[in-house]
Parts: sequence; C-alpha cells; structure tokens
Amino acid sequence: MLPTDPNCIFCKIVAGQIPCHKIHEDDNVLAFLDVGPLSQGHTLVIPKGHWVTLDQVLSEISAAIGKVLPVIAKAVCDATGTPDFNILQNNGKLAHQAVGHVHFHIIPKTADTGLGIDWPAGKLEPQQASDLLAKIKASL
Amino acid sequence: MLPTDPNCIFCKIVAGQIPCHKIHEDDNVLAFLDVGPLSQGHTLVIPKGHWVTLDQVLSEISAAIGKVLPVIAKAVCDATGTPDFNILQNNGKLAHQAVGHVHFHIIPKTADTGLGIDWPAGKLEPQQASDLLAKIKASL
Repeated sequence: MLPTDPNCIFCKIVAGQIPCHKIHEDDNVLAFLDVGPLSQGHTLVIPKGHWVTLDQVLSEISAAIGKVLPVIAKAVCDATGTPDFNILQNNGKLAHQAVGHVHFHIIPKTADTGLGIDWPAGKLEPQQASDLLAKIKASL
Repeated sequence: MLPTDPNCIFCKIVAGQIPCHKIHEDDNVLAFLDVGPLSQGHTLVIPKGHWVTLDQVLSEISAAIGKVLPVIAKAVCDATGTPDFNILQNNGKLAHQAVGHVHFHIIPKTADTGLGIDWPAGKLEPQQASDLLAKIKASL
C-alpha cells in the first residue's frame, strides 16, 4: 500500500479525482503534462506514492522513476523537436518546490523558452573536500 | 562492456586516471563531489558508461542512478545540515550542459548558495495539450 495524502493535488491526480494529460502510467509512476509549462512539452514524472522530498523516497520507487525518465524524455524531445532539455527535481521551499509531493520536471529548452539557470560556481578546496567527504560517507 | 570515450573527463574519472572525491561506486554508477560547487556538498552522480544525454541512456542504467539518488541526497543533506536541495540534469548546450557525459547534480540549497532558478511559467491550453499529448504518445 503506497502512502497517500488526501489533501495533496498530485495524490488526487493519481487517484483520478483531478484529470491530467497522462503520458505514462505504471505500478509506481505517473507522467503527465505540466499545466504551467516553462516550454512546450514540459512534463512531470511523479511517484504514485506520497513522499514530500526525494531523500524520503524508497530506492526501488526512485529506481522506477529513473527507469522511465530516458524513454519519456526522448518521446517529449521527439514530439516537440527540441533536443535540449533539463531534468529538475526540487526539494523544499528554498529550492523552489511548489507542490509537496516529489516530482521530476522534464523541461525542453529552446533559446527563448524553458528553465532559466543561474550558476554561481565556487571552488572546492582540498581540506574542505576531505572533511566534507568524511561527513557524507559517515551519513551514508 | 559499457561505452566509453577516451577524451571524456568523466570517463577518465571512472577509469581512475583522474582522481575524485568519491562518495559512492557500484557496477553502473559513480558519485563524487563537484570541484566547482554551487554550494557545500554539491555532488555529481554519473553512469559509468559514456552517454551524452539522458535520452540515450539504457533504462536499467538510469534506474540504477535513480536507485541511489535518495540515499546519496540524504547523506549529503545530513552531512551539510541543509534539508533543501535540487536535483538537476542538463542535456545539450542550450540547457547548460558543460560536460558531454550524463550527470545528475545534487545541489544543497541555502538562502545564499546553490542553484539559481528562473521560472517563466506559461499556461497549457486544452487544444495545445491534446495535440501535444498525441504526439508524445506516438513517440513513446
């Protein structure tokens, strides 16, 4: 039995209580057109179960999403004639998450439409890297 | 035998010819710290095989990436004390892809650091949605 939240709009879509433009459905995953697209073909791929952020999702469910992402992305690209695209999955308000149910965006990118990205890259210092790596490995 | 490109920097990292700050490795996937981080803990998760864009990746390889994403993301969040984060995977120059070997970014987000996002959302019109959906399904 997958977790669900009766107040979640994506859970309502999964349950068929709210319609969607459905692209793909299997036991664990649903894909449909985003109603507020950044570009033509903007698609959402979600787990049918309700998890708020990706770190909470069971590995086998996330694997099921990973399995279909290339196939759906290719179909979206082919259908829209847009070879470039971004996969984006936001977790938390600071990270621009708008619906509290895990969702992967497939967003075709053209010169004029799609996801806008700012990339304020820093530099990884060796000592900082060693300390951080040890902490992450201890958390794995 | 996984595809490889002798001129690809990520293939060289996979082969051990260039060092990395390795977080995770299994038969198909490698994860390591990004040397040009957008925030502390910025991590790359890549297939060991060389594919340029996600639509080219075999479903079982993409599933293997999906399987480890939640676990690595959680470890990065725990280690950095940053609950919010973005998963980003860019395909093509227009979409900000800098290295021509598929890579998923895990980017912790704080008020001051991490991925900058511009979100110029439109509206999906019913007729446009129906036409697009038919095209995408025909391409699946």
